[in-house]
Amino acid sequence: MRLATLRRADTTVAAVAADGRWVPLGYRDVGALLADPDGPGRARAVAAPGAVPGGEDLAAVVPHPAKVVCCGHNYAGHIREMGRELPAHPTLFTKFADTLTGPADTVTVPDWAEGLDWEAELAVVVGAPLHRADRDEATAANDLSVRSWQRHTGQWLPGKAFDATTPLGPVLVTPDELDPAAGLSLTCRVGGELVQSGDTADLVFDAPALLAYVSAFTRLSPGDVVLTGTPAGVGAGMSPPRALADGDVVEVELVGVGVLTTPIRIEKTGTEHRECA
Amino acid sequence: MRLATLRRADTTVAAVAADGRWVPLGYRDVGALLADPDGPGRARAVAAPGAVPGGEDLAAVVPHPAKVVCCGHNYAGHIREMGRELPAHPTLFTKFADTLTGPADTVTVPDWAEGLDWEAELAVVVGAPLHRADRDEATAANDLSVRSWQRHTGQWLPGKAFDATTPLGPVLVTPDELDPAAGLSLTCRVGGELVQSGDTADLVFDAPALLAYVSAFTRLSPGDVVLTGTPAGVGAGMSPPRALADGDVVEVELVGVGVLTTPIRIEKTGTEHRECA
Repeated sequence: MRLATLRRADTTVAAVAADGRWVPLGYRDVGALLADPDGPGRARAVAAPGAVPGGEDLAAVVPHPAKVVCCGHNYAGHIREMGRELPAHPTLFTKFADTLTGPADTVTVPDWAEGLDWEAELAVVVGAPLHRADRDEATAANDLSVRSWQRHTGQWLPGKAFDATTPLGPVLVTPDELDPAAGLSLTCRVGGELVQSGDTADLVFDAPALLAYVSAFTRLSPGDVVLTGTPAGVGAGMSPPRALADGDVVEVELVGVGVLTTPIRIEKTGTEHRECA
Repeated sequence: MRLATLRRADTTVAAVAADGRWVPLGYRDVGALLADPDGPGRARAVAAPGAVPGGEDLAAVVPHPAKVVCCGHNYAGHIREMGRELPAHPTLFTKFADTLTGPADTVTVPDWAEGLDWEAELAVVVGAPLHRADRDEATAANDLSVRSWQRHTGQWLPGKAFDATTPLGPVLVTPDELDPAAGLSLTCRVGGELVQSGDTADLVFDAPALLAYVSAFTRLSPGDVVLTGTPAGVGAGMSPPRALADGDVVEVELVGVGVLTTPIRIEKTGTEHRECA
């Protein structure tokens, strides 16, 4: 089953794919659908196989999660090639709900937010309350990161939480159709050039492990989002480091889920950001 | 003007202090009051001087903020005594809304959450949208931190976001009555023993500076909460390090705002937390 959040004039609506078209359901978005115990069943009664429909303006597949938790340093191959030990614990940080944006939206940052970088990721969405790690759905994310602000201190938040910089979607795929643990190809292209190529089977902490760890300290609810980390090939790791430029187009593809296509706009402010210190 | 969120049978209600009693207003909580452009004016029309009323069961003064941003390493005296440079940028991390709890609530953590520590803090609550840093209200917080989980990796989130571990309140005081920049005494006592004694005039990044920095990357809205950091004297800094024990009572006092009284309960689980790696 494939779910999406469609934009309408002043609102959004959750929809399920059936016979190559989107069928709207009675929920504001996919998060609201998941939060209703009857929601997934109502969607499944309508769902039908077929190509994923196009032509709609999609919002972030879950636009208003209460919690967005992200994991860094989580692809074993990349960690080993950097000569580091595999970590004993996941490295976690957060985003806000309004850090998310739609799967085809332009991402705009001001020119003083230097070092905008890509990070292709598998994201999972909690499908049921409590610790039922078997009930999560898969989607894709691009954890676009402002490296200069990420490095202001040891805590990464500022560079990870610029408003509307994390495309999430395009659709949510239920586990009966897709098993990230069995390995999904995850790639990122910038201007058509392949810069990241990973496989979700290479995750140190897979989705059930991350959900178990996070839910040990904080309750997770249907619709909460966990980003699972990015494989090798980010701009910050290149020599010399590479940053996204105005007009670049970034494409993140998670096979079985779809493509996030993100035009980049660097806003000319004519000012430096004034530091507060 | 002093505002509080009072607990009722199945709900909560915002109230304003008037003549030594709490007068309920037509809002679910203080956050909802602040989110209504007419809310502060409606409260001010009722407010009157007098002692802060007692006898009520108080919720976290803002129980459902969309964003909770916290600053570490922010008291100049403590930074200098550790032989470090004053930072150029605030060190920021987040909590979730349900990390907050009431000003007299018991805080319970499982016994595998080792190293529970106190952190007395001034918290400010955003009073208006946009970047109007002059419109913020003051309250107190205890950023109770699970040091073992805080140190699992370089990112502090897990130790800072155990559910219902951050007392916030007891009341919100508007800036006409209280100016943190002019210096408010901030103390923490454990079992009556003074362990922290600071002054908000010693903040490296004061409330306007923090609000300006945070709002550079993410929108802040009325009711969002910023914790401004803690002065010297936490348990982790003692030799040997000291952790809170079952039955301890922690009192955080911000003069002009009030006292957070927090009984500590360490839940005996009889299990180790199983790591996911």
